[in-house]
Amino acid sequence: MKGSHEFVNRDVISIRGFTREEIDYILEVSRSMESIVERGSDMLRGKIMAELFFEPSTRTRLSFQTAMYKLGGNVIGFAEPKVSSVWKGETLADTVRVVENYADIIVLRHPLEGAARFAAEYAHIPVINAGSGAEEHPTQALLDLYTILKAKGRIDGLNIILMGDLRYGRTVHSLAYALSNYDVSLHLVSPALLRMRPEVIEDIEGQIEVSEHTDLMEVLPDADVLYVTRIQKERFPDLGEYEKVKGSYVIDLEVLKKAKDDLIVMHPLPRVDEIAVEVDSTPFAKYFEQVRNGVVVRMALLALILGAVK
Amino acid sequence: MKGSHEFVNRDVISIRGFTREEIDYILEVSRSMESIVERGSDMLRGKIMAELFFEPSTRTRLSFQTAMYKLGGNVIGFAEPKVSSVWKGETLADTVRVVENYADIIVLRHPLEGAARFAAEYAHIPVINAGSGAEEHPTQALLDLYTILKAKGRIDGLNIILMGDLRYGRTVHSLAYALSNYDVSLHLVSPALLRMRPEVIEDIEGQIEVSEHTDLMEVLPDADVLYVTRIQKERFPDLGEYEKVKGSYVIDLEVLKKAKDDLIVMHPLPRVDEIAVEVDSTPFAKYFEQVRNGVVVRMALLALILGAVK
Amino acid sequence: MKGSHEFVNRDVISIRGFTREEIDYILEVSRSMESIVERGSDMLRGKIMAELFFEPSTRTRLSFQTAMYKLGGNVIGFAEPKVSSVWKGETLADTVRVVENYADIIVLRHPLEGAARFAAEYAHIPVINAGSGAEEHPTQALLDLYTILKAKGRIDGLNIILMGDLRYGRTVHSLAYALSNYDVSLHLVSPALLRMRPEVIEDIEGQIEVSEHTDLMEVLPDADVLYVTRIQKERFPDLGEYEKVKGSYVIDLEVLKKAKDDLIVMHPLPRVDEIAVEVDSTPFAKYFEQVRNGVVVRMALLALILGAVK
Repeated sequence: MKGSHEFVNRDVISIRGFTREEIDYILEVSRSMESIVERGSDMLRGKIMAELFFEPSTRTRLSFQTAMYKLGGNVIGFAEPKVSSVWKGETLADTVRVVENYADIIVLRHPLEGAARFAAEYAHIPVINAGSGAEEHPTQALLDLYTILKAKGRIDGLNIILMGDLRYGRTVHSLAYALSNYDVSLHLVSPALLRMRPEVIEDIEGQIEVSEHTDLMEVLPDADVLYVTRIQKERFPDLGEYEKVKGSYVIDLEVLKKAKDDLIVMHPLPRVDEIAVEVDSTPFAKYFEQVRNGVVVRMALLALILGAVK
Repeated sequence: MKGSHEFVNRDVISIRGFTREEIDYILEVSRSMESIVERGSDMLRGKIMAELFFEPSTRTRLSFQTAMYKLGGNVIGFAEPKVSSVWKGETLADTVRVVENYADIIVLRHPLEGAARFAAEYAHIPVINAGSGAEEHPTQALLDLYTILKAKGRIDGLNIILMGDLRYGRTVHSLAYALSNYDVSLHLVSPALLRMRPEVIEDIEGQIEVSEHTDLMEVLPDADVLYVTRIQKERFPDLGEYEKVKGSYVIDLEVLKKAKDDLIVMHPLPRVDEIAVEVDSTPFAKYFEQVRNGVVVRMALLALILGAVK
Repeated sequence: MKGSHEFVNRDVISIRGFTREEIDYILEVSRSMESIVERGSDMLRGKIMAELFFEPSTRTRLSFQTAMYKLGGNVIGFAEPKVSSVWKGETLADTVRVVENYADIIVLRHPLEGAARFAAEYAHIPVINAGSGAEEHPTQALLDLYTILKAKGRIDGLNIILMGDLRYGRTVHSLAYALSNYDVSLHLVSPALLRMRPEVIEDIEGQIEVSEHTDLMEVLPDADVLYVTRIQKERFPDLGEYEKVKGSYVIDLEVLKKAKDDLIVMHPLPRVDEIAVEVDSTPFAKYFEQVRNGVVVRMALLALILGAVK
């Protein structure tokens, strides 16, 4: 059985760095944070989290801040593109070695792949990857798993669809890796141009059943989870091609008539029009609950890594 | 008699949503915050305020932050135009439904009229309007009332001048509505081009005595309160017209010779040259005290709405 | 003997405003902060520090924030160039008189010389100069002294080199003044174009031994401290001239072979290539420790000025 001591001072760079046992433990600690999130706590009093956001991501940034404040800690950092550009004058290695003197943990967002891993190699304090390049976004994958577990009571045995832009979205890459630890059937639904990267499929298809589709209807009727991501017009060299496919990946009440009653619809947000507003008030919709779950999962990670979980 | 329970989870969108009895109660609670402002308190420990500033207003933002910190709470949010533009990609409804998962209360500043009311309709947590469009700015109106009450010991029976740009300034609109709850004589002094909007006058003239003037000297000698706002050159299509009027709306010691000794001069700040610096050190000047009063009034609102006032 | 009461509400504008006795006392209090920096404290609970950064300087800003949070206080302010430009519409005197209603202490960074002194004249709360113009940067000088004292056990009797751009760097000006309180030999090493300003040399050469050099090798062998600053290409009207000199002011292991074994190498950061990365892991390198020392020195100043040191 994994214990909390294994997480102290640990970096969170990729979801692939965690075993199923470890992920389950994080989700268990996340659940224990549910009671703290309302009233707050002093678990991380006197601790400081540094958010180094070389790329804007206000949602992720605010989510980590909330998690830290709910645990009684404080937050420093930068997010403004102008300010962060100032730091680019020095190497990331130096920035990290400066900031580790201010903070107890670094949360890094960076446009370059590998940046989080590189930072972790230099830092004497733990680093959490809040997204680097088109690589993974491990805390998003954890909150997605937590959302599924909370809504369904389990992850094993589920029929899960990832739909939309599976090529460029770091969220779906991380989630696919995370799900490969469980006994699930994974259905990848996207336009041909935006299929899941072959290296991801290769990595996971030995572990779980994976199928690819361009037509949602082939897999929707049996699905337990439908994870929607946005298809951006800019990805299509030919706008006509975009116009042809876009309607096929929009979820509305009409589409959901073909789904099981207890299907849950997820989305990493922001959504534009890939999920109709009419879905929001139905029991299908879990995308705003994902936001809430992000706070407890990040609380769990911060508390575990900073040694506040006994 | 109003009790604190009536304010729990209440939105603050417009000063018009409050009765005189309620306003008096807020001012009374504000007074009780005076002793807390120095030493700080734990009343809102574990609570988080989200500041969503889609339009810059550093003064208002810092004032709310100070209020929250003095009560032991924490603050998240954004103010940088670049960062907030990122949020514009999603609907305000979605932004609010994301942020309500991070915070216990939202403070919203937005360039569009009606934005605060719209946000409040979607949010499951209370929303405070920190200025939206040319609409009202209710917390400014409350701090203005508090400043008058503190300096004069009463609001009823006073002779009050609002001067300057009465057309575009949201501050004076909110203040006019706020004052209409009291037994005051209101004198509106402005260039013809910048007269108070007719709908505001219509709304309040049934309740209080209102007169309009272009010449300050017609009303200054009997005034108890002179509320000055800035006249911006850009409002005048004809610069010659601007040059003609601007001198008439500048307050200096010479002008104040015609005023009662206990007149108070107020201004929402920033001031440019509409109040001469020589006035700052006289007992007339209350504009920096308004800033201080803004903190206690916002402390009162936050504590009331978040249920910390028994 | 100086006592803590002499620091309460005191402005920190220039290192020249402090006697040796006072500086020694600050360094002594800094040392007492070493034990607090790990676990945090409640010394400044309920207190608010306002950071008014009219010029970006993320390192200094984060350092002050960390110091304040470690003491249990809170932080408001602005640093974004766009936001701070909004404040430029009003006079600095008015900005200060607004902000003093929100905070207990102001930390100011400003591009204009004299800005900090000017702000201190208007503010009713203490002001710390975090750099204004090419003037001094007193808290950097204090952390530099603290670093020397910690590494060497004393400052008196040391042989100290300041090297690089001695003309434009406010850091080296402040440090030269700070060191002139001690019994040190100061060696100034720079290209002819970037010599220390004559007024600084005039001010300090009555108090300590000062020599100027263009060749580091003349003074390196006997040095106890080598303080390196960056030489910017932009300072040279003739790029050929820059290319000629730049190599002479780069510190690497080869250069350090000529130095005493216990030489310490300092740098205010960010460094570009004036210190080779290979030096980082040697005992010579103290530049990242300077960052850490900046936090305890700023904690000491905040605690002293806000009356939390008994």
